[in-house]
Amino acid sequence: MDLRINLPESEIPTAWYNVMPHLPSPVAPPLDPQTHEPVDPAALAAIFPESLIAQEMSDQPWIEIPQPVRDVYRLWRPTPLVRAKRLEEALGLKVKIYYKNESLSPAGSHKPNTAVPQAYYNKQAGLRRLATETGAGQWGTALSFASVQYNLDCTVYMVKVSFEQKPYRGMLIRSYGATIFPSPSDKTRSGRAALEKNPDHTGSLGLAISEAVEDAATHEDTNYALGSVLNHVLIHQSVTGLETKSQLVLAGEKADILVGCVGGGSNAAGLFAPFVPECLDGHGPQMLAIEPMACPTLTKGQFRYDYGDVAQLTPLIKMHTLGHSYTPPPIHAGGLRYHGNAPILCQMVDSGLVTPQAYYQKEVFEAAMLFLKTEGFLPAPETAHAIKGAIEAAKNAEPGQTVVFLYSGHGLLDLAAYDAYLSGKLTDYEYPDAEIAEALKSCPDI
Amino acid sequence: MDLRINLPESEIPTAWYNVMPHLPSPVAPPLDPQTHEPVDPAALAAIFPESLIAQEMSDQPWIEIPQPVRDVYRLWRPTPLVRAKRLEEALGLKVKIYYKNESLSPAGSHKPNTAVPQAYYNKQAGLRRLATETGAGQWGTALSFASVQYNLDCTVYMVKVSFEQKPYRGMLIRSYGATIFPSPSDKTRSGRAALEKNPDHTGSLGLAISEAVEDAATHEDTNYALGSVLNHVLIHQSVTGLETKSQLVLAGEKADILVGCVGGGSNAAGLFAPFVPECLDGHGPQMLAIEPMACPTLTKGQFRYDYGDVAQLTPLIKMHTLGHSYTPPPIHAGGLRYHGNAPILCQMVDSGLVTPQAYYQKEVFEAAMLFLKTEGFLPAPETAHAIKGAIEAAKNAEPGQTVVFLYSGHGLLDLAAYDAYLSGKLTDYEYPDAEIAEALKSCPDI
Repeated sequence: MDLRINLPESEIPTAWYNVMPHLPSPVAPPLDPQTHEPVDPAALAAIFPESLIAQEMSDQPWIEIPQPVRDVYRLWRPTPLVRAKRLEEALGLKVKIYYKNESLSPAGSHKPNTAVPQAYYNKQAGLRRLATETGAGQWGTALSFASVQYNLDCTVYMVKVSFEQKPYRGMLIRSYGATIFPSPSDKTRSGRAALEKNPDHTGSLGLAISEAVEDAATHEDTNYALGSVLNHVLIHQSVTGLETKSQLVLAGEKADILVGCVGGGSNAAGLFAPFVPECLDGHGPQMLAIEPMACPTLTKGQFRYDYGDVAQLTPLIKMHTLGHSYTPPPIHAGGLRYHGNAPILCQMVDSGLVTPQAYYQKEVFEAAMLFLKTEGFLPAPETAHAIKGAIEAAKNAEPGQTVVFLYSGHGLLDLAAYDAYLSGKLTDYEYPDAEIAEALKSCPDI
Repeated sequence: MDLRINLPESEIPTAWYNVMPHLPSPVAPPLDPQTHEPVDPAALAAIFPESLIAQEMSDQPWIEIPQPVRDVYRLWRPTPLVRAKRLEEALGLKVKIYYKNESLSPAGSHKPNTAVPQAYYNKQAGLRRLATETGAGQWGTALSFASVQYNLDCTVYMVKVSFEQKPYRGMLIRSYGATIFPSPSDKTRSGRAALEKNPDHTGSLGLAISEAVEDAATHEDTNYALGSVLNHVLIHQSVTGLETKSQLVLAGEKADILVGCVGGGSNAAGLFAPFVPECLDGHGPQMLAIEPMACPTLTKGQFRYDYGDVAQLTPLIKMHTLGHSYTPPPIHAGGLRYHGNAPILCQMVDSGLVTPQAYYQKEVFEAAMLFLKTEGFLPAPETAHAIKGAIEAAKNAEPGQTVVFLYSGHGLLDLAAYDAYLSGKLTDYEYPDAEIAEALKSCPDI
């Protein structure tokens, strides 16, 4: 059998899989922070196109992928499912390890799987421009790529400290033709207010979200796009799980354990979702969601309504949360530093379908180095969490079992993090129990 | 037909193709700079293993690829041949454009195609360590990756100015476990001599070669490895041309024009070599070697014996040269800034099989931006030369014709160059005719 299981283009899924109607209990609706009533879909129309709002609420198990989206997907999809044989040999276990390689997309991660349809639907709805925020830069890169495919302009508010620490990210986003502003910027009321209070403000994801949402809400021709958490994002990410299922059939394998890293939850849920029905039937794989010890949303958080952002601008979302006022320690997996998680994934955790696990960053980087030296490719620090989870799962598995993890992105623009690891400069952050307890008090009492 | 033409692993070539016995006139042997006699193979044994010396002189048309090399190749080979349909559409031509995507290797370029066998043969010969130089960093990355696959240590001397300008390259090389020194270093006699003369020496490729060769020559357990120019390197690179031929058959296509960028010549020659016999039979493709205007080795150089390095340490090589004392202007395609070229490729040019073309860097970056925005992927500045050549070839081709170019590497670690382009900071260097005429005087009179 080949190490890389390639599918022909005809196997790019023709429909996304919506796991919501299959879950044992329904995903709780987002609530208006004032009234605590479910949010009126019409209220979302200022920043999202109707087609995506409909997907957000959909009870249909399959949602057709428009042909113009598949036309862009085929630039890199289907992605290969790869047997990590040299990693297996280094571990000396009789367990098979596969990874679904989403790092091969133009933007280098799984993010274009949703950026492309989001750009498409906005173009269809007559929009001229998209606004978004980006933290570490993966999502901003993906949306910039997707926007240029449909001749949309794209404005990216990038958290200022990341903008300065990761100059290559900003350059790549600009290369795709997008406009990028370090946030806080002087382009929005929220940005100006923050700068007035503190001209040296280094920014935060919450603030960048505020700027992007304000930009979209105040410009008729502009909508907002989000890279994780929301239901429609997770639906789009199901392409990875669907392809993986076909590839396992081709390889004559059955997955015993699925592994994904978790920040907002979209890459893990995309892999897991199509396996949920067989899990409910009792013969599906074990599903592991791997998060950082420094931001243990699923392992230490509470499953309750909370704001999606620090500034309390978003609707209330029922999810595992550490409290929206929680500021995770500065670990290098920037994409996993989120106080909450996608409602769909949280529902899977709450119902026992998905098991969360947390690891310290040094052991995660150690796993990344083993992967690099055996398989040759440099993973993103976020992805390295999935690698660590997969290695530990393999150690605990029975001989002959099969572990499949989602390789969410490459680490070529994260080399400073590896340098810090190699230079012995990484810190393992202890459970910030007291801080989390304090931050949880910031959740509204619902 | 799928955009990406994938081959199964069974189609990884089982033998490399050696074009030397097929060329209309033989490749001239390297000469000893003192005696002007052909170099004695035994003299090379201090820094190369016998197996590679034999390949360097081989008149066999096929050289078997050892299974342990194919075992590493399969981490990323066969690479896809990709139809650049969105680029075609943007150009509005009825010409088909394909690219052979070598950027998908662990090191992100075609370089591992030769780094892996070089590491393997050295391991087989009982060596413990490899020493090499790197300019922009692609080769150092590839050899670091290859060395760790066979448990060899690896020492990389990186030109100091690149080491400082491209910190991510050094970090990636260290991540693979290699040791990296900015050159000039205090580790070698040549390095110390340079530092004594000038403590602020920023290094040069010539000097870094001297350091690596000295390191290898003065350590029994250490050999030297070179990433281009030499015959055995070009032989290894034939895997790309061989796979491309199979993929064209699968796609039902015949290549009318092949395009590769040229620095030392290995990626272009690897693509071209297997097509030479049909070219000699009169029904092969046109073959275009694309170089920078700032370093127009093939278009403006003379075909004669010259040193491979500035410091006159190498044997004399018959090649197109601008004179070994020529210092190309600081264009961003660092990998194409070489005064000479591979003897095999030069022989192909001299016999009219290959046509050289030169472009200015701004038009090359413009071509890269078009590729990025249509196909989604960021090319290395070196690779962008091939893209520019392919676009121009397509414009001049007949409707229905097929252009195939070698996509030698990604540009994710070259983003500063794109930033300079986007910021309007790039300069187009005029033909430095007078400088070249002066430098040509540095060639020995043979």
